[in-house]
Amino acid sequence: MNTFGSKFKMTTFGESHGVALGCIVDGVPAGLSIDEVFVQSELDRRKPGKSRLETGRKEEDKIEILSGTFDGISTGTPIAMIIYNGDQKSKDYDSVKDLFRPAHADFTYWNKYGIRDYRGGGRSSARETAARVAAGAIAKLMINTLGIKVQSGVISIGGIHGVNVDFEYSKNSLLYALDKNKEEEQIKAVEDARDTHDSIGGSVLTVATGVPIGLGEPMYHKLDGAIAGAMMGINAVKGVEIGEGINSATLKGSQNNDALVANGFKTNHAGGILGGISNGDDIVVTTHFKPTPSIFQEQDTVDKNGNEVKCNLKGRHDPCVAIRGAVVCEAMMALVLADMVLLNMSANMEHLKSVYSK
Amino acid sequence: MNTFGSKFKMTTFGESHGVALGCIVDGVPAGLSIDEVFVQSELDRRKPGKSRLETGRKEEDKIEILSGTFDGISTGTPIAMIIYNGDQKSKDYDSVKDLFRPAHADFTYWNKYGIRDYRGGGRSSARETAARVAAGAIAKLMINTLGIKVQSGVISIGGIHGVNVDFEYSKNSLLYALDKNKEEEQIKAVEDARDTHDSIGGSVLTVATGVPIGLGEPMYHKLDGAIAGAMMGINAVKGVEIGEGINSATLKGSQNNDALVANGFKTNHAGGILGGISNGDDIVVTTHFKPTPSIFQEQDTVDKNGNEVKCNLKGRHDPCVAIRGAVVCEAMMALVLADMVLLNMSANMEHLKSVYSK
Amino acid sequence: MNTFGSKFKMTTFGESHGVALGCIVDGVPAGLSIDEVFVQSELDRRKPGKSRLETGRKEEDKIEILSGTFDGISTGTPIAMIIYNGDQKSKDYDSVKDLFRPAHADFTYWNKYGIRDYRGGGRSSARETAARVAAGAIAKLMINTLGIKVQSGVISIGGIHGVNVDFEYSKNSLLYALDKNKEEEQIKAVEDARDTHDSIGGSVLTVATGVPIGLGEPMYHKLDGAIAGAMMGINAVKGVEIGEGINSATLKGSQNNDALVANGFKTNHAGGILGGISNGDDIVVTTHFKPTPSIFQEQDTVDKNGNEVKCNLKGRHDPCVAIRGAVVCEAMMALVLADMVLLNMSANMEHLKSVYSK
Amino acid sequence: MNTFGSKFKMTTFGESHGVALGCIVDGVPAGLSIDEVFVQSELDRRKPGKSRLETGRKEEDKIEILSGTFDGISTGTPIAMIIYNGDQKSKDYDSVKDLFRPAHADFTYWNKYGIRDYRGGGRSSARETAARVAAGAIAKLMINTLGIKVQSGVISIGGIHGVNVDFEYSKNSLLYALDKNKEEEQIKAVEDARDTHDSIGGSVLTVATGVPIGLGEPMYHKLDGAIAGAMMGINAVKGVEIGEGINSATLKGSQNNDALVANGFKTNHAGGILGGISNGDDIVVTTHFKPTPSIFQEQDTVDKNGNEVKCNLKGRHDPCVAIRGAVVCEAMMALVLADMVLLNMSANMEHLKSVYSK
Repeated sequence: MNTFGSKFKMTTFGESHGVALGCIVDGVPAGLSIDEVFVQSELDRRKPGKSRLETGRKEEDKIEILSGTFDGISTGTPIAMIIYNGDQKSKDYDSVKDLFRPAHADFTYWNKYGIRDYRGGGRSSARETAARVAAGAIAKLMINTLGIKVQSGVISIGGIHGVNVDFEYSKNSLLYALDKNKEEEQIKAVEDARDTHDSIGGSVLTVATGVPIGLGEPMYHKLDGAIAGAMMGINAVKGVEIGEGINSATLKGSQNNDALVANGFKTNHAGGILGGISNGDDIVVTTHFKPTPSIFQEQDTVDKNGNEVKCNLKGRHDPCVAIRGAVVCEAMMALVLADMVLLNMSANMEHLKSVYSK
Repeated sequence: MNTFGSKFKMTTFGESHGVALGCIVDGVPAGLSIDEVFVQSELDRRKPGKSRLETGRKEEDKIEILSGTFDGISTGTPIAMIIYNGDQKSKDYDSVKDLFRPAHADFTYWNKYGIRDYRGGGRSSARETAARVAAGAIAKLMINTLGIKVQSGVISIGGIHGVNVDFEYSKNSLLYALDKNKEEEQIKAVEDARDTHDSIGGSVLTVATGVPIGLGEPMYHKLDGAIAGAMMGINAVKGVEIGEGINSATLKGSQNNDALVANGFKTNHAGGILGGISNGDDIVVTTHFKPTPSIFQEQDTVDKNGNEVKCNLKGRHDPCVAIRGAVVCEAMMALVLADMVLLNMSANMEHLKSVYSK
Repeated sequence: MNTFGSKFKMTTFGESHGVALGCIVDGVPAGLSIDEVFVQSELDRRKPGKSRLETGRKEEDKIEILSGTFDGISTGTPIAMIIYNGDQKSKDYDSVKDLFRPAHADFTYWNKYGIRDYRGGGRSSARETAARVAAGAIAKLMINTLGIKVQSGVISIGGIHGVNVDFEYSKNSLLYALDKNKEEEQIKAVEDARDTHDSIGGSVLTVATGVPIGLGEPMYHKLDGAIAGAMMGINAVKGVEIGEGINSATLKGSQNNDALVANGFKTNHAGGILGGISNGDDIVVTTHFKPTPSIFQEQDTVDKNGNEVKCNLKGRHDPCVAIRGAVVCEAMMALVLADMVLLNMSANMEHLKSVYSK
Repeated sequence: MNTFGSKFKMTTFGESHGVALGCIVDGVPAGLSIDEVFVQSELDRRKPGKSRLETGRKEEDKIEILSGTFDGISTGTPIAMIIYNGDQKSKDYDSVKDLFRPAHADFTYWNKYGIRDYRGGGRSSARETAARVAAGAIAKLMINTLGIKVQSGVISIGGIHGVNVDFEYSKNSLLYALDKNKEEEQIKAVEDARDTHDSIGGSVLTVATGVPIGLGEPMYHKLDGAIAGAMMGINAVKGVEIGEGINSATLKGSQNNDALVANGFKTNHAGGILGGISNGDDIVVTTHFKPTPSIFQEQDTVDKNGNEVKCNLKGRHDPCVAIRGAVVCEAMMALVLADMVLLNMSANMEHLKSVYSK
């Protein structure tokens, strides 16, 4: 179950402190220009250690493409990519190898599998998302050719909500903050959490523009369902909203319905999706991240033998996973859309004729 | 893409005003007692027309099992179930066959497929969820044998939030209300909406108890991801939360982390899932429904030719889809858990030995 | 695992003596004219009791389409079809309910599932193939629009091999015989088998013409691999060959290679497939059926308790399953090709542009 | 479509002359000892250049495991393996970059994808099977713990058929010959082909012993169907037989039926499979390979512009692909069985109880 997607597929591998991590991207149409510099730049946006708000772990995250291209063009065969692990301090984890860190996956991996690679969380580490970002970069290259653009940024930190959204601004923000007027306050919240050996939650806004009408496969692979599944599957995510989201549950139909006009919709409470299918408007998704589980305060836990013990963590961790999480949300959205673009190609006989009449 | 699940699979068919709707449930282990009376009782909980809060459409929703059982026991072969459509008033839809009802799937189906069954929304009708409830009933029968119990109820209507949760109470509530102290106010909100030719949103709480530790398949079929995908794929859902949900994005790690003690967890902010795997605590999910798109006020829309026109709906509709939606959430949760129960069976070599050493 | 296909999908249900059998065909593009009379005519070709060479069981095999069409046109939603079971003589099977008929699936179903519907073989009955033929008819309707034609006939019976192939002739042959000069001898072999309470094997030739170049998805969904899997999965099949088939293992490269010329290939040893992808030449497949397992001679077997007993069968059975098997081979080939047609649509960026530039 | 298997899954990547090839094996239960020396030894059996009967291309085929194990034990996470490409002589292929080698995939890849890596056949090279053998080795490690053993050898070369089968003998045979009395004649046939700049076909026998009753998932993932699909998907395979195979089509039921006795079956015409499910007897499969397409005689072909040209190949090629193909057949059989072992775990409620009652 380490494959994501039905037709544009990513299969990932790798643990935080293993030899390498990477992915195979399968289903990429032949003839796509694979810009390796772009793929690396996407990884650079996600990689840790860029700012004082992030873990001190410095990972070079150098990507290598192993297959699937010829003279820089996709050939229709699987594109494998690999990132060798670098700056690992596995020693930091010796103290936790026999106990379960609260709010981490230690307890559940141990019980499910009977064995776990405790170093840096092993497979459950957020480091795995590097592979997603690499695959997401390929997805972006493909959907960009159709005019689809995906962007993400941080809209909220610890209850400090952004109001004005500026994706251009967020690109150069330490925090990927969308609202420059809230940025300072949000940064301070992260720093306060860090300085008190704590962590803090945050929320990410992801918007896709230029999405053609018709993406999404009812009943059980609707666009909204697929996005929600993708986002909730990112480490630390606990809530996902489409468009008006949770607030829509408090509204009346007369408030929430989006009237149609000649060139589209008057409003976008729907977040660009109706009946599980894109309606041509912007796809708007909000993803909520819990605070980083790793905090540097003493916590109660148990060890492998069921004894109650104290947990005192070492290691290096982001105080707020939502920040780099924004890049991951963007990748997952791109992957969902790339898959839906391919799946939609057989929606009707007109499409078949377009392809086969040549 | 009308199949849900990887190993415990439901494939559904049918339109609102077609001949019949139904499903094939595949992957049910042999030897399970299939209680047809129970399956019908689940459908009865979902069927419309039970109360004044629901559409006047009276559907008998009589289920027939066509295959997959022998002397009332599952044989390991696919279980097909069918519900013939009854009380259809297709005439009601003549006026909308050439225009797109706001907030409905009309516009997107038309653009994706180039054809649509406009009668009652066709495939996009919430009537399709009857098939999900039937399949969910089979899922429940299976997971019940392991001690897993799934329950849902309405926690919030139009911003009126329930506080105390009583699943027993909700079973006999017109509104499936979980908090009896809020029920009257919530019912009034629905009636007000109906009486003003409007509709209203609401939220459903779903809880699974007795879930064994270890369900969920990281990375891309995590339990939380699968639940979120399933819930967001239900008609009219716009937000999904696990455990502390969106609120977790406002908290600090020291507030949100669940400490472990000898017999489990001190708190359940996680909603029973860590690293995408069940941790043995209750699975807690909140699902938010937008207001019913069908309202009986004049709305702006366009017709198939792109002309701006007025939309005046007839027909019979629930003023609040969240109410019956609660039964659907329960079914989807049961289907996810049934699938995860089967998938988890090959998690480790101990499980293999258990099965094959016999 | 009762679903066949990746994008053009058939999910089937039903037992030989149950209430009904049928299928859901999912992934059919919208806008395809669904000719119900044609679907019925395909079923009529498969149905038993048409001639003295077949089982006396008379099944009407009346198909009903339950969903997925509107005014006779596919809508992109799942097409469900049902056949109610008629002329069942379940009593005939009372004598075998506790023992395992040799060469049947009784023994393996019992051991795998711990329960079996012994009436007529239950799910393992060749009667299940009626659902395949119905789904195959939908597949044919789709691929016919692209100029693809699939035909099957009997090439060999009990070692009597046809040499000249005439698909037109076979359509009106009792035996679906491809070589009219061998037909009489082949019919006599079947009648001899029947008259000696025995059965006999046979082979089916299936040819697809007009197949566009490019169908097949390497590595693990190659066209030849998919065809072989489909054919070997038909009841009683024990061998599958593509093109030159087994004989190619006795040849030299200089004999077996097909030289290319300006308008295609000089020869077709390859059977129309190179590297798992159609090359534009005819797809040629030979499928070999074992003799019907049900014979009316006393056989040695065991019962459910492991006691050695004698097996004396009653019931009505084709003496040669290959005959009606020809219709099933045709359906399976159509299903494989329909799936490959849809899968191939995202093979390259030119196809994407064709669809999305509109 | 570069993933094989449903629950025990292999996803492969890589081209003949690219950077590397490899695979991700997903679904391996945790707690399996991963013997890296064994994996390498399996690759060594497949690697070219071991004898005068094989291509002169010397590939070290050194495997590295990148993930999924901890202290040599599987952790339930994906096992990635990589083989960097070594001894490539891409220059040899300059002369064929604009034309289509007869009986190769050049023509079809070009037409499907519009681009191809012509160096050594790119993705369509039999070199890709190294990844299959690596994954197959992991499969073997798992099924061996249940007592299942898979063996392959060459039974026939150019029409010279082995009669006596000795798998032990074949292990040390240059030709993997199963019948030592035919080996010399078979070797001579290969050498004659090579010396006349030609190639030759051959057939492989694969036998699995110790297979538990019950493997195989009817209807559309039957054991025989899955095996046939797997074998026919190997490069150069044109025919697959189970048990009595093609010969069964010439027999009568009274000859072909396998009578049951107290401890199993009297005969094994069925090849160990009934109704698509293993019956406890040996699984017997024969796989037929066409002669190597690359021959060193002048051939007619066309170039990319459709001009008729002469093809004169350089490079290094096995004169008989069936020999090393035997190792690949073995790997594919192991992969199918490993998948079926996992899939079967949810066949009945007894299995569920075995796993969850602990």
